Amino acid sequence: MNNKKTIALLLFDDVEVMDFAGPFEVFSVTNELNQDYLFTLRTVAVTTDPVIARNGLSVNPDVQLDAMPQADIIIIPGGDGTRAVLSQPVVMNWIKQVSTHAEHILSVCSGALLLAGAGLLNDMPATTHHEVFDTLAELSPSTRLIRDQRFVDNGKIVTSAGISAGIDMSLYMVARLYGHDIAQKTARYMEYPYFTETDNSQNEDRFNDNSPLAFM
Amino acid sequence: MNNKKTIALLLFDDVEVMDFAGPFEVFSVTNELNQDYLFTLRTVAVTTDPVIARNGLSVNPDVQLDAMPQADIIIIPGGDGTRAVLSQPVVMNWIKQVSTHAEHILSVCSGALLLAGAGLLNDMPATTHHEVFDTLAELSPSTRLIRDQRFVDNGKIVTSAGISAGIDMSLYMVARLYGHDIAQKTARYMEYPYFTETDNSQNEDRFNDNSPLAFM
Repeated sequence: MNNKKTIALLLFDDVEVMDFAGPFEVFSVTNELNQDYLFTLRTVAVTTDPVIARNGLSVNPDVQLDAMPQADIIIIPGGDGTRAVLSQPVVMNWIKQVSTHAEHILSVCSGALLLAGAGLLNDMPATTHHEVFDTLAELSPSTRLIRDQRFVDNGKIVTSAGISAGIDMSLYMVARLYGHDIAQKTARYMEYPYFTETDNSQNEDRFNDNSPLAFM
Repeated sequence: MNNKKTIALLLFDDVEVMDFAGPFEVFSVTNELNQDYLFTLRTVAVTTDPVIARNGLSVNPDVQLDAMPQADIIIIPGGDGTRAVLSQPVVMNWIKQVSTHAEHILSVCSGALLLAGAGLLNDMPATTHHEVFDTLAELSPSTRLIRDQRFVDNGKIVTSAGISAGIDMSLYMVARLYGHDIAQKTARYMEYPYFTETDNSQNEDRFNDNSPLAFM
């Protein structure tokens, strides 16, 4: 029996590079370090034509959206491209549809705007990149903005803060799904500091201009 | 007059995703946050056919190696693909040639093995991913291995530790070239903890299995 979780990682033009590359690295390396038992990760986009990520990185998606109508875990990265995606029914409808049966929907950075636009963040706490707190509030007025955490876990839906916070959120999800030892092994392999849930909740003043980054 | 520094970021099959995506993010975002004045970054590979990075991420390089015979900054990422690259004369010769006139040669993770193979690390301190310390020592016996720092600066040549350390090294290089304020602005935008040179030199026991990651 194969219990591998399928992951659909959304790509679109002007996606922020580290928003998708961070989670890609965490989940794919975790799978590889654990005998290929845990995840099958696929990049998905409207078509399989090259996606031009921010600043010109050209990436070929694995499958097109309509070929992946369901997945266990959905990852929605951010970037300036989210503005255009918000008015692309084919993507927004895919997000709504695939979210219905997914175990987890994870957003990185301004990817939360797409969840907000899809109505998935109503009446729950969430976070996003610090430059789009206001945009998130406009798209989803009932969402309670969390400005001082790297990621916010609502059970099925987990949102993370800007860019690099997607790495922390991904490691956190690996820990939630398979335990701290598995997550820590990946973090050590990546030579990345491993934030525990406790660390996350202690962060504050993430964007107070007079203080160093408080999550250090 | 255009003083933008050109950056050549090497890609090859089975390159580690975050090894190239981290520096790509740091240098390209730094350029964008500073009125597009600082860097022109190009991904380079043997041909412009898709490169299949680790775990299947497919990336289209911007230019082929022989179309980019020089650059101000060369970035050599790592990954399991470095083993094959070591026996590819077309890449190894490009590294040797382009390094002659470059201002800086930066390696991430096991990318240091390629610098070692090209004879660029003779008689100097260097670091790499913790799993290939021995391989680096075999390839370049006169290199002094630094096991407890995120990156090692030899002036022209800067090597970084595993995977995520490429982000720290890139921010460090931005600071070295354009000052701490520019680097810190990028780090804050990326919501990434900004390591100063002092922090780096204080790290220790990076891979003592009994201690948490000491660079936190």
